[in-house]
Amino acid sequence: MKQNEVSRATMGRIPVYLRYLREHTRPGGNISATTLAQQLHLGEVQVRKDLNAISGAGRPRTGYDTRELIAALERFVGCGERGGVVIVGAGKLGRALLDYRGFGDYGLEILAAFDAAVEDAPRQSNSGKPIYPMRELSGFCARNAVRIGIITVPAGAAQQVAEQLVASGVRGIWCFAPCTLCVPDDIPVQYENMALSLAYLSNRIRTGEAGQG
Amino acid sequence: MKQNEVSRATMGRIPVYLRYLREHTRPGGNISATTLAQQLHLGEVQVRKDLNAISGAGRPRTGYDTRELIAALERFVGCGERGGVVIVGAGKLGRALLDYRGFGDYGLEILAAFDAAVEDAPRQSNSGKPIYPMRELSGFCARNAVRIGIITVPAGAAQQVAEQLVASGVRGIWCFAPCTLCVPDDIPVQYENMALSLAYLSNRIRTGEAGQG
Repeated sequence: MKQNEVSRATMGRIPVYLRYLREHTRPGGNISATTLAQQLHLGEVQVRKDLNAISGAGRPRTGYDTRELIAALERFVGCGERGGVVIVGAGKLGRALLDYRGFGDYGLEILAAFDAAVEDAPRQSNSGKPIYPMRELSGFCARNAVRIGIITVPAGAAQQVAEQLVASGVRGIWCFAPCTLCVPDDIPVQYENMALSLAYLSNRIRTGEAGQG
Repeated sequence: MKQNEVSRATMGRIPVYLRYLREHTRPGGNISATTLAQQLHLGEVQVRKDLNAISGAGRPRTGYDTRELIAALERFVGCGERGGVVIVGAGKLGRALLDYRGFGDYGLEILAAFDAAVEDAPRQSNSGKPIYPMRELSGFCARNAVRIGIITVPAGAAQQVAEQLVASGVRGIWCFAPCTLCVPDDIPVQYENMALSLAYLSNRIRTGEAGQG
């Protein structure tokens, strides 16, 4: 496993590979990087590089054993490694994430949300997940061994929330608030900025850079 | 402008720089990469590299003219370049994006959403934006010079939607559906996979790689 060497772009293609392999190949068969690239409309060099980083080189002529390749890809994205996740900020985005079903594919589950507007009895999201008052954050994280906190509060409240999450034992933060957080060095922070993503695409159109990103 | 050379990580920091410069510096003053790095808790090498890519090197000792630096950053993210955007798929995520206010910072505006469940009269999002039936997509895009289409439909419907968007004249696609789209080579597709982003953070925690991404 060479996890640190794999780019986010490669990681972004892993579910694409996994989906194709699960749906279109049979266990015990083989598949070449060339075939996979053609089927998925991706560059062959790119696919070869991705698979090599995650599963090692394919065998000459036969390519990859599909079962082994699927297992390597699954190991890589962390399937099977359970990790509790909580959201702080149950606005529109927080609730959309709370009810989003795709996280389970990677062995991750958003257990609950917390919101300053909830004062007494917990509320429920559309899918029935609990939304608790902020004062329950710390106890909940401890009881459920929460590893990741997602911040979807306004920028002005984000630093304080980050500190509460760190104090509650989370080991990484996914931040949707437009701000920079100050947290201990050993806590990775991943920033998500929807506006920036769209601006980035707009720039790619302007500069005429096509392809998949 | 060296747009093609700038990474997405750098682009992700641009709003952070802009916010700080707008709020904490005065026009006519100067700021050094060192100061900016300290204030924002970022690595100095990183800040220097970012600013150099976007605005050229700062002057020795004095650093950057704050007004010029802000202008260069704004030009870079495309402020002032108006571009219409539509969303296809007005589920929870589609509506969250439709009502998200941050896009305006980059001169981008989501004008409307389209959804197969809307059959007759347009509906409205919480913020009052229209949600139209699918049959109005093409005419709307033509009338409003729409450049970007956001796909937030289920994976099974995404390819067809992509084709409709391309036929309606959009020049780039931002895809939230977990699938690979097949579109003409000159149409950039940017994939967003929420589950993957969270899995990526989880991996960073597991491999002990901290820092900001």
